[in-house]
Amino acid sequence: MVKVINFAEKFTQISELHSYKLIAEMNDYQFKLVKMKRTFIWHSHPETDEVFMVIAGNLQIALRGQVLELHSGEMVVIPKGVEHKPSCNEECQILLIEPAGTLNTGNAGGDLTDTQVSWI
Amino acid sequence: MVKVINFAEKFTQISELHSYKLIAEMNDYQFKLVKMKRTFIWHSHPETDEVFMVIAGNLQIALRGQVLELHSGEMVVIPKGVEHKPSCNEECQILLIEPAGTLNTGNAGGDLTDTQVSWI
Repeated sequence: MVKVINFAEKFTQISELHSYKLIAEMNDYQFKLVKMKRTFIWHSHPETDEVFMVIAGNLQIALRGQVLELHSGEMVVIPKGVEHKPSCNEECQILLIEPAGTLNTGNAGGDLTDTQVSWI
Repeated sequence: MVKVINFAEKFTQISELHSYKLIAEMNDYQFKLVKMKRTFIWHSHPETDEVFMVIAGNLQIALRGQVLELHSGEMVVIPKGVEHKPSCNEECQILLIEPAGTLNTGNAGGDLTDTQVSWI
């Protein structure tokens, strides 16, 4: 049974901030939703590009020498190895697309690493 | 220079129906936009899953024994090898995510095959 995924409906199932939830897999790539309201840490993913898509709210992603401002209906590909620091002042709803096993903190590690990604 | 992609703005650059336009690459995967108003042919992609995301309008995807109805803000993963037939009665705006080189007509081939995918 193939299922249609509605982003808004999925976000109603997410109560906590900063808890990454799997909603789909395409080959060895994963689609994850997260509600975010924080300034994250500088990190990169040396092995992969990473896609951020804004479903609701606004997301700022700092790069070294550039600041990206993303709004609902926008996406960006952060190339592999490029250091970035995402932040949301107000709560935002984000779709991440990246290979299975990609950690949110990338090469930086530390306390904010979420290894508990679960399906909704 | 990393660029933010706005789907609505990109669609204003697409005048023709059924002309697939590349907007982003993530590793060896491509993000393509298409304006669609037709009933497509039955086909499958024996080598890969495929993601359809509806940016505007409504998309119907027939599977053997199931019909999916997708609206704006919804997506689906069509598993590899699963026959499907997308259709839009009214114009819809679709984002496709799939490996580079994936043909729109998959295993079926024929006159509707689009080998002219270009960047916008």
